[in-house]
Amino acid sequence: MARTSLGRWIPETFDGRLCRPYQDPFSLQPMGQRATRALRRVNPGHNKVMANLTEAILAAGLKDGMTISTHHHLRNGDALLNMVVRAIHALGIQDITIASSSVHPVHAELLPYIHSGTIRAFECGVNGLIGEMASKGEIRCPITVRTHGGRARALMSGEVRVDVAFIAAPCCDPFGNMNGIAGPSACGSLGYATLDADYAETVIAVTDYLQPYPVAPISIAQTQVDYVVAVESLGDPQKIVSTTTRTTTDPIGLMIAGYAAEVIEASGLLKDGFSFQTGSGGTSLAVADRLRDKMLAAGIKGSFGSGGITGYFVDMLEQGLFRTLFDVQCFDLQAVRSIGSNPGHVEIGADMYANPFNGGAIVNQLDVVILGATEVDVDFNVNVNTESNGYLLHNTGGHSDTAAGAKLSIITVPSIRGRLPIIRDAVTTITTPGETIDVIVTERGIAVNDRHSDLKEELLRRHLPVKDIRELQQEIVALTGQPKPLEFEDDVIAVIEYRDGSIIDCVRRVKA
Amino acid sequence: MARTSLGRWIPETFDGRLCRPYQDPFSLQPMGQRATRALRRVNPGHNKVMANLTEAILAAGLKDGMTISTHHHLRNGDALLNMVVRAIHALGIQDITIASSSVHPVHAELLPYIHSGTIRAFECGVNGLIGEMASKGEIRCPITVRTHGGRARALMSGEVRVDVAFIAAPCCDPFGNMNGIAGPSACGSLGYATLDADYAETVIAVTDYLQPYPVAPISIAQTQVDYVVAVESLGDPQKIVSTTTRTTTDPIGLMIAGYAAEVIEASGLLKDGFSFQTGSGGTSLAVADRLRDKMLAAGIKGSFGSGGITGYFVDMLEQGLFRTLFDVQCFDLQAVRSIGSNPGHVEIGADMYANPFNGGAIVNQLDVVILGATEVDVDFNVNVNTESNGYLLHNTGGHSDTAAGAKLSIITVPSIRGRLPIIRDAVTTITTPGETIDVIVTERGIAVNDRHSDLKEELLRRHLPVKDIRELQQEIVALTGQPKPLEFEDDVIAVIEYRDGSIIDCVRRVKA
Repeated sequence: MARTSLGRWIPETFDGRLCRPYQDPFSLQPMGQRATRALRRVNPGHNKVMANLTEAILAAGLKDGMTISTHHHLRNGDALLNMVVRAIHALGIQDITIASSSVHPVHAELLPYIHSGTIRAFECGVNGLIGEMASKGEIRCPITVRTHGGRARALMSGEVRVDVAFIAAPCCDPFGNMNGIAGPSACGSLGYATLDADYAETVIAVTDYLQPYPVAPISIAQTQVDYVVAVESLGDPQKIVSTTTRTTTDPIGLMIAGYAAEVIEASGLLKDGFSFQTGSGGTSLAVADRLRDKMLAAGIKGSFGSGGITGYFVDMLEQGLFRTLFDVQCFDLQAVRSIGSNPGHVEIGADMYANPFNGGAIVNQLDVVILGATEVDVDFNVNVNTESNGYLLHNTGGHSDTAAGAKLSIITVPSIRGRLPIIRDAVTTITTPGETIDVIVTERGIAVNDRHSDLKEELLRRHLPVKDIRELQQEIVALTGQPKPLEFEDDVIAVIEYRDGSIIDCVRRVKA
Repeated sequence: MARTSLGRWIPETFDGRLCRPYQDPFSLQPMGQRATRALRRVNPGHNKVMANLTEAILAAGLKDGMTISTHHHLRNGDALLNMVVRAIHALGIQDITIASSSVHPVHAELLPYIHSGTIRAFECGVNGLIGEMASKGEIRCPITVRTHGGRARALMSGEVRVDVAFIAAPCCDPFGNMNGIAGPSACGSLGYATLDADYAETVIAVTDYLQPYPVAPISIAQTQVDYVVAVESLGDPQKIVSTTTRTTTDPIGLMIAGYAAEVIEASGLLKDGFSFQTGSGGTSLAVADRLRDKMLAAGIKGSFGSGGITGYFVDMLEQGLFRTLFDVQCFDLQAVRSIGSNPGHVEIGADMYANPFNGGAIVNQLDVVILGATEVDVDFNVNVNTESNGYLLHNTGGHSDTAAGAKLSIITVPSIRGRLPIIRDAVTTITTPGETIDVIVTERGIAVNDRHSDLKEELLRRHLPVKDIRELQQEIVALTGQPKPLEFEDDVIAVIEYRDGSIIDCVRRVKA
């Protein structure tokens, strides 16, 4: 075992790869060169269109032990990954590693193929049942959880080599030019797939909306695509994007959002040029709503909003509160419509979004990010991967990336969830290190990381309910009681990779 | 010496590199992997803005013997390459190779730096005085002429390694996001610079219009840029883009254009989905003009226009005659305005445009391309590099790329130029092989490559003046007389690289 700088014990190796213990957010320097791939030649008259997935898989030369990927912009509506694995299984190919950008509950359908040996491992975080089954020891399938920026880094550095990328292409032409803005499976940005297109040895575009050449705008280009397959359907449009995302109406959520907006105002960052990211959760959107009012009232013009984009951000763009949206994933239909028509709404890839090992990602330019948590601890460490039952249920997303990049990273959480206190002595799993978290906002009080004594004083001056994090914890635990500690076996079912490739924590099998 | 399949003698090596003799347009397969470069890390708070070019050159670690590049979208208005070489010279750095996308007459200012040893070689074609001086033996400086697609291939394959790319960025932010659509040096597309941004070891953005973060749309992104330098001026806006490009009014040019349009119609390619490329010359635009009329009259909707884009093509996009323009370079102000505002006007890089060694370039999808020539010969080989005096005066551009890609490549030339016949027994220099040229149109007749007997018959059926190319040649020579053969020394001043990296011809020193 090895020990991280945060005191977590991690294995020396996992799934055949050395585990480098996490040290700090910024000092690990990349060694070596960007990954490469074979040059190819395509002459005039070449046909890329294959009759079906099976033919494309055979043409790509997929073999036992290889690695495939998909992207997760179709979210829980995605039919492609299941379809691909069924086709691989039917071909008798075994020991495949899934290196998708994320896996969702709909992919619980893959469980039999893990049992059968078609799937060997996941080089990506998993949302839902697969993680639960792994946590219970009911499947044996190593899982390496990565941030969005960390996945970009792993593809670019060659740490993860994708042999065949299957890219769900909502609107695609026969030569492989594609975008996500049209067709029955329109999902908007294809940002998580751009590095797959650039680094996978073979790229297969799969579409349910094959259009005449050329499709434009072009998110992923013909130069990067080897084969094109038309299928009946890429998934369930109802689950691909929500028709709308809404702010919370829950009074606790609204209280937290109000405090968070006050913190942002107190930070001094809310001025012309302001940049901001938040997720699609109701409380996050309520913060955005508060900020919009403050910006309108004070005549503040922001520079950009980033990340997963909602209709809230689109409204702010259209109202001139941001000049630009950097969109790696569209969360609702309003965002999909906007990315296809508003030149200020810019599609970006995961590399540009959050990769720590390039010429500088967008997260580095963020003033403020609003993030969630399943747990936090008195050292400001945050868990988003495991739940209070110890099960690995969530992928990291851009959590650690934006926390590291933003000048002010704020966790908004209710103090109590499922009758359990949200602030722990130590989180079950460290996803994001406390040294990159600045403020934790609950409805019972606001805890400020010691690194920000100025901000703490300003919040106090503004009569906001600032509390020492241990004091806040005790107050909450006085209501909930001390939760029973979870019990784990020794065997590691997953490692949590930090964005720089070091291992910040691991997830162990839960004691039955 | 080695011999190409077209019978040209070329050196075994040139400037230290083995010369592989040209064989045919399509069969040479790429070996090996895409080039790579060192991974880098940029943390939050990092500053990329350097005080001046000298500071940026020092920061980039430029040393004797290294290779630099610029792009040529500023054409003969470009001040950057001269500025960079002056700064390099002032630092005492020697033996620099220039691997720009092209060099223009304005860069004749570099001649003293060739004499002084600051510049050692050109890994690119040269337009104007530098080529002339090399042809006369007045400078010693090996020149490797490449097509636009061939340059993309050479950067991507690592055959040419750029140590420091200096990218003229007409509109740029302090983190290096840039586009060409705004600012005093607006040039539109930055398509020839995209691979420099992707493959150069260090990338320096140089701008005369530094704007607040973030600049959008983004042609080249912050992730690819290491340093940003603001300068007073990138060049002379009058010479960067012409305010307008016009069709010819010359009766010979109009006659040629009329024939070319008839040939296109006769080919059967002028139907819905039609794709087309032409240059910015007056005769080429007159062909476009004729086609526009034909398309409007017949209600034909084309798919795309490509290449260097003029206001003519913008009009056709706006009239719905093309769905898309693929723009690697804007030729006039109307194109610059359009690329910044019309979503159907798509900026593309040289890789997407014409690289033979990727998943398939746009030239492969072309129906028809209209091209020029300084000479053609009875085997349909075309020269665009040297003039009738034997001097190397022109870069290849996309000539060989589009000729190889398009279903129908048409050369439009006056039969006589400067009292010399345009059709020769053998061109002085083979730029583009005859096996990729389909038709030669002059005002005295139309020659069709034997490979297209169907087209020849159809043209005859339409009473167009089809002539055997030797017959056409004799008719012209009867008027001009047989030109005196040029005399050359043995020493090779330049090689003409075909798009696949083989050497199709070389240019020798002209006998004094």
